[in-house]
Amino acid sequence: MDNGENLRRSDEFTVVTRTERRKDNGVIMPEITTVLDHLDKQLDTSLERLFTLLRLPSVSADPAYHQGCLDTADWLARDLQSMGFSASVRETPGKPMVVGHQPGPRPDSFHVLFYGHYDVQPVDPLELWDNDPFAPAVNVMDGGCKVITGRGSSDDKGQLMTFLEACRAWHDVGGGLPIRVSVFLEGEEESGSPSMHSFLEANRQELQADLALVCDTCMWNAQTPAISTSLRGLVAETVVVYGPDRDLHSGHYGGVSVNPLRVLSGILAQLHDANGRVTLDGFYEGVQEVPAEIRQSWEALEREAAEQFRDVGLTRSVGETGRTLLEQIWSRPTAEINGMSGGYSGEGFKTVIPAVATAKVSFRLVGGQDPHQVREAFRAHVRAALPTDCRVEFHGHGGAPAVEMDWDSPFVEMTRRALSEEWPEPTVLVGMGGSIPVVGDFKRMLGMDSLLVGFGLDDDRIHSPNEKYALTSFHHGQRSWARILDLLAREASRR
Amino acid sequence: MDNGENLRRSDEFTVVTRTERRKDNGVIMPEITTVLDHLDKQLDTSLERLFTLLRLPSVSADPAYHQGCLDTADWLARDLQSMGFSASVRETPGKPMVVGHQPGPRPDSFHVLFYGHYDVQPVDPLELWDNDPFAPAVNVMDGGCKVITGRGSSDDKGQLMTFLEACRAWHDVGGGLPIRVSVFLEGEEESGSPSMHSFLEANRQELQADLALVCDTCMWNAQTPAISTSLRGLVAETVVVYGPDRDLHSGHYGGVSVNPLRVLSGILAQLHDANGRVTLDGFYEGVQEVPAEIRQSWEALEREAAEQFRDVGLTRSVGETGRTLLEQIWSRPTAEINGMSGGYSGEGFKTVIPAVATAKVSFRLVGGQDPHQVREAFRAHVRAALPTDCRVEFHGHGGAPAVEMDWDSPFVEMTRRALSEEWPEPTVLVGMGGSIPVVGDFKRMLGMDSLLVGFGLDDDRIHSPNEKYALTSFHHGQRSWARILDLLAREASRR
Repeated sequence: MDNGENLRRSDEFTVVTRTERRKDNGVIMPEITTVLDHLDKQLDTSLERLFTLLRLPSVSADPAYHQGCLDTADWLARDLQSMGFSASVRETPGKPMVVGHQPGPRPDSFHVLFYGHYDVQPVDPLELWDNDPFAPAVNVMDGGCKVITGRGSSDDKGQLMTFLEACRAWHDVGGGLPIRVSVFLEGEEESGSPSMHSFLEANRQELQADLALVCDTCMWNAQTPAISTSLRGLVAETVVVYGPDRDLHSGHYGGVSVNPLRVLSGILAQLHDANGRVTLDGFYEGVQEVPAEIRQSWEALEREAAEQFRDVGLTRSVGETGRTLLEQIWSRPTAEINGMSGGYSGEGFKTVIPAVATAKVSFRLVGGQDPHQVREAFRAHVRAALPTDCRVEFHGHGGAPAVEMDWDSPFVEMTRRALSEEWPEPTVLVGMGGSIPVVGDFKRMLGMDSLLVGFGLDDDRIHSPNEKYALTSFHHGQRSWARILDLLAREASRR
Repeated sequence: MDNGENLRRSDEFTVVTRTERRKDNGVIMPEITTVLDHLDKQLDTSLERLFTLLRLPSVSADPAYHQGCLDTADWLARDLQSMGFSASVRETPGKPMVVGHQPGPRPDSFHVLFYGHYDVQPVDPLELWDNDPFAPAVNVMDGGCKVITGRGSSDDKGQLMTFLEACRAWHDVGGGLPIRVSVFLEGEEESGSPSMHSFLEANRQELQADLALVCDTCMWNAQTPAISTSLRGLVAETVVVYGPDRDLHSGHYGGVSVNPLRVLSGILAQLHDANGRVTLDGFYEGVQEVPAEIRQSWEALEREAAEQFRDVGLTRSVGETGRTLLEQIWSRPTAEINGMSGGYSGEGFKTVIPAVATAKVSFRLVGGQDPHQVREAFRAHVRAALPTDCRVEFHGHGGAPAVEMDWDSPFVEMTRRALSEEWPEPTVLVGMGGSIPVVGDFKRMLGMDSLLVGFGLDDDRIHSPNEKYALTSFHHGQRSWARILDLLAREASRR
């Protein structure tokens, strides 16, 4: 195995013994235990840095927080600089990107691109938060588990900082990083990544690496690390139905005027059949059955999946009949209504026929489903069902196909081992119901595979009030990345 | 015809010639032309009074405006006192009522109870108003028609002031009113009249009169006055569907978690069949066909109804197939979705499965439909369609059966004549799509018929932004009531 290129293409992976220690390019290759000890000692100061980051309100979907996004990008660029990265804030038509580079020990060092996102979800409904979402704290939950609370504590600020802290520790202990690392932090992940394509296009050379590392996923449970080998894609649409040219009194016009809320309800009610399948024309084109061996490995996890399902008050899946929970979440496409509004929603009652009704609808994609085709099929479905006196507007949000990784990849195997050393239980390979569209972009635009390792937990309440991140996730996440960097460096040093 | 009791029960009505003039109880019975002239001269000052009333923000559905409601009641009681009424603000568990009395010329004078409401609809969406909804003005519309703008200018502050100004003119000119008049002004009409029943119950004696006069309806068009002889009833429900015990990420739970917005859309989409009929069990019990002669009289008005329909951007009725517009609006029951909310509705996109979804649904009733039965049928429909892992809450708002008047009533005939004298075109007798629940309460609780005369126009934008009231409505409405009081007094004086 000679260099990153070969490592990447190798079909085999050999466990590397921990013997050689070399110094290259000013970087001492310390024992991994030294780096891990350093991370343990620095946990409190790393937590202070995370709190500073969490206090910056970077809600990308809400223009009111634009300055908060700019401040967050600035802070991250300075933080990267403080640990030896040449880092800068890079403007886009939307929120800026943060890009930093640090060479490895040698010019031909193995090169990874770490991706994370610094923007966070909106915080409404604010009244359901126990604390200010932008005033992070460490709280002890029932059972004694310590958690970091606040918007972004898990998704994705807490997660991305696990990698940066691992880099910082390598820099502090060894004077540099054991491999070449580029860091790429986005500020629009929660609002459809409108600037991603053109940014990747314009900075292809700079961002291309041997492998992307992405930290935006979950563990299987608090003891069991996970590598996500498939990600569902996403198509999101805002659909606006217009009826009468103004709000009408339902006494004067009720029963005769078209009612956009009735129209929209009727259209959305037709999105699924009685067996839970999505009815759009051609929706299942490109959807393939999961191989039997993979489905069997998931069956071992099904019992725990059902427990997690019950933890949020649910007992029966509404998905396609005849499939397990994990099969539905990891390998089947969906249609969901994520928001609806129209007419009067305040206290009391207003007998109005609204002039307009709005819904936010999204589709999770798997396998080879084409986002463009799904979007067009949805629009055609709505248009075909639209009655006289109505018109419709569509606003497309981010679309991305599903991504499926090679289960036999040496990176997967190596990472599986690094994680199993760090955590109480062995690593599991899982699918993932959510989307990380950039993973598909990396593959298609930069020809780069992504390794998806994250330390979130299913009950982190990402996208909901009272988001949290387990302190163990933050601490052992740092240690996990330190180990992964170590293993990648050892591979490079074997040349 | 001997007294009010007889007048009320008479099957015949004789045109009274304008000869006798008597003075009773300090009241001079002036010629009607003197009263009308006085109203013409005082138009500007009456407009100032209306503006003062419109500036008081009395949105009963929104607790933020509670003080505005109290201030409005106070102002009205003082205004009634200024024209000789013994008037007071009467507390209720909600917004206060205003009640005033003024004796007629003699102890046995014919006695009318005038009903109006001083509360107004919410003003959202505020951004669609051209002016502050609580800063009334007179504006000239395209075509030169002068209109009074502001929330409540038509519904119902402008309307109720037409009656009070007529009383004021009689008081100024004649030193008192020609008949006995009680005024009863409600502050909760736009929020379901929760205090009405107990207030009527507790003040039955005081409020019982020979006839109720209600000014909360429309003219046929700007030239043609109308008497409404039927009113649809109303049942209103807020339905809240709960699913998972918190908002969920649609990536992690999409396709398996029950989605309250999908559930609610599906349930509401089943409220109508393909022919526009409401599907609730027993919904059409008590609904009767309109007699042929009435339907024929409405057919003459159908062309103009279709024009008004087109004025709000509509070309095809969604009502029951095979019926005219006016038949659908005046004589057929409906189900409407008046509001829906749930999930994320802000800018951008949030891939959430909401824990809760809410809809506001109302039913317009006709004939003998029982509001209680309709409400229970709706609740049963929702409960029957509710899937596992969902629960539902209902919040009932005002319910009232339809009211149908006797077309042959002498009061209808007399009022028809008074209005025809005032306006360019002869009076038409119409049905009404909206509800005035108090009319049913007057009938059932006080045994009192109501005469529904109003001067609103269909394009007044009541319940919508930029509500307005034609200056001609305000002016000739006052004159119309002066005439109606005159005719009623003449009947009494014929004893």
